[in-house]
Amino acid sequence: DKKLKVFTLSSNPDLAHEITREIGVEMGKSSVQRFSDGEIQINIEESIRGCDIFVIQSTSSPANEHIMELLIMIDALKRASANTINIVMPYYGYARQDRKARSREPITAKLVANLLETAGATRVISLDLHATQIQGFFDIPVDQLLGVPILASYFEKKDLGDTVIVSPDHGGVVRARKLADRLKAPIAIIDKRRPKPNVSEVMNIVGNVEGKTAIIIDDIIDTAGTMTLAASAIIEKGAKEVYACSTHPVLSGPAIERIGNSQIKELVVTNSIALPEEKRIHNLTQLSVGPLLAKAIVHVYEERSVSYLFD
Amino acid sequence: DKKLKVFTLSSNPDLAHEITREIGVEMGKSSVQRFSDGEIQINIEESIRGCDIFVIQSTSSPANEHIMELLIMIDALKRASANTINIVMPYYGYARQDRKARSREPITAKLVANLLETAGATRVISLDLHATQIQGFFDIPVDQLLGVPILASYFEKKDLGDTVIVSPDHGGVVRARKLADRLKAPIAIIDKRRPKPNVSEVMNIVGNVEGKTAIIIDDIIDTAGTMTLAASAIIEKGAKEVYACSTHPVLSGPAIERIGNSQIKELVVTNSIALPEEKRIHNLTQLSVGPLLAKAIVHVYEERSVSYLFD
Ligand SMILES: Nc1ncnc2c1ncn2[C@@H]1O[C@H](COP(=O)(O)O)[C@@H](O)[C@H]1O
Ligand SMILES: Nc1ncnc2c1ncn2[C@@H]1O[C@H](COP(=O)(O)O)[C@@H](O)[C@H]1O
Repeated sequence: DKKLKVFTLSSNPDLAHEITREIGVEMGKSSVQRFSDGEIQINIEESIRGCDIFVIQSTSSPANEHIMELLIMIDALKRASANTINIVMPYYGYARQDRKARSREPITAKLVANLLETAGATRVISLDLHATQIQGFFDIPVDQLLGVPILASYFEKKDLGDTVIVSPDHGGVVRARKLADRLKAPIAIIDKRRPKPNVSEVMNIVGNVEGKTAIIIDDIIDTAGTMTLAASAIIEKGAKEVYACSTHPVLSGPAIERIGNSQIKELVVTNSIALPEEKRIHNLTQLSVGPLLAKAIVHVYEERSVSYLFD
Repeated sequence: DKKLKVFTLSSNPDLAHEITREIGVEMGKSSVQRFSDGEIQINIEESIRGCDIFVIQSTSSPANEHIMELLIMIDALKRASANTINIVMPYYGYARQDRKARSREPITAKLVANLLETAGATRVISLDLHATQIQGFFDIPVDQLLGVPILASYFEKKDLGDTVIVSPDHGGVVRARKLADRLKAPIAIIDKRRPKPNVSEVMNIVGNVEGKTAIIIDDIIDTAGTMTLAASAIIEKGAKEVYACSTHPVLSGPAIERIGNSQIKELVVTNSIALPEEKRIHNLTQLSVGPLLAKAIVHVYEERSVSYLFD
């Protein structure tokens, strides 16, 4: 009898089911409902005493609901005598609030880390943390998986010819470098400058994109402002065509409209965040991180080294 | 220069402003906004270094949003070097999830206590906790104010004649007793029994209501099922008319409709939870806990004994 159990919460049940199929276990039985006033009611419907639990939950929009749901689930698991409580959180909500950019701001990414530990999480498995420093916000083990290999395989198969990998800002160069190594392509970097206060930004490109197929890479695509402006700048500098890729498709506010009106030929993302029908537009491709997460879960459960998975 | 500062969050700004007017301080400057993806963005817009902070927030519906907002605010206050962080939480969300009623359930009221402490709260001031045991869920001081004196004063002024105070269940008898003492009235208790499984409950009344004006009291009125059924049972037993009162007007789901169709002549609640226009129906009276909370804040700030306020 297996002591490994996987539970899903409500952010990404399709991914969770893919993971259980991949591992070859039944989905853990639990119910997540709402009381009349909107408070979350969770019940675990099978014994989990002494088991190693993996809870699948991205704390993507609505972040607050998904965080609270996760914390309440952890509380229930802890009180039901789980052996370990491993949080598989492909998308880490509030990851961008990772430092005080201004005085008297919260550091919500650290708060979330504290909340997860307080509730009783014993390990976190995440994917492309916005800042690797977030691992250090925890006192429990945090494994970070990377989306780059999955994105790279997809583009390898497409065989786009003479390509250049573009980082939309200086913060993303390491990620762009990794994709470039995989695809044996050069990189270019978008260098935003504001010549004077209240004058709009100038987008300069460091590196050569002329006549090439450009692939812009970022960790999160949220309102798509950065991506679509970068795409225009790249086309202006003579690129043949522009692809974009990003691990986490937050796609909030004007994102879908902007992508529709943009120079981006295809946007490639993962299913770290589940997308509703209306966001699955024709030029969006969603790749699954299910097999990767399933492998990581099995490795963690069997206490095998997973370092090759985690970078 | 005062070191006492009051901040509001988004659950109950009217009450918060009433409190600052009552105390005679300006409202603390902060902004609570949303990023495009719905994540909460908080900034404290004045120095609070070394100050004693009182944050006004009921974690009423939507409980999860209001809890996260509060936790993020506490994190920001802590990092901005507040001296003390006092949470004025008239309504404590998830208070009803205060024990394991079934196996493998969470105890979310305890989780919320842990979350508040982890974030950095140093004291909680609340009103009519659903279970007094919740004070023991915290390792920081928790002051509990009571709504009964406010409700009692209102009914005293109304002078309803020959009254009886009714507890809608056995759990509420202590509260009913307190109101009865204030109003110098007898009590009655609704005694629900289910004669056989799958047979509907019988409402028996222990005590005499015949020919009297009954006042039902409960801590929370949520879907109003308990209250409206109790009102019918009381009228059936020959009461002249029925009033209802409750500290916390959750009023979710069918509540407003049920009250409208019920035998309840007037429902008296407090503003521990802010009510939208459509819930302020003609036979609902909302009394303010602003003066009581203001007094408690000043007493806590001046380190004066407040025990007379707290029972
Ligand atoms: N959910 C969010 N949406 C947009 N911006 C955010 C969000 N959370 C934090 N930020 C801001 O993003 C900035 C950090 O982004 P970055 O420089 O890419 O690490 C900070 O200044 C934050 O104020
Ligand atoms: N938000 C809620 N709405 C309705 N019932 C709840 C809520 N939270 C907890 N409960 C249930 O209420 C019961 C406790 O109520 P009580 O017996 O009045 O203390 C428990 O069995 C809980 O499952």
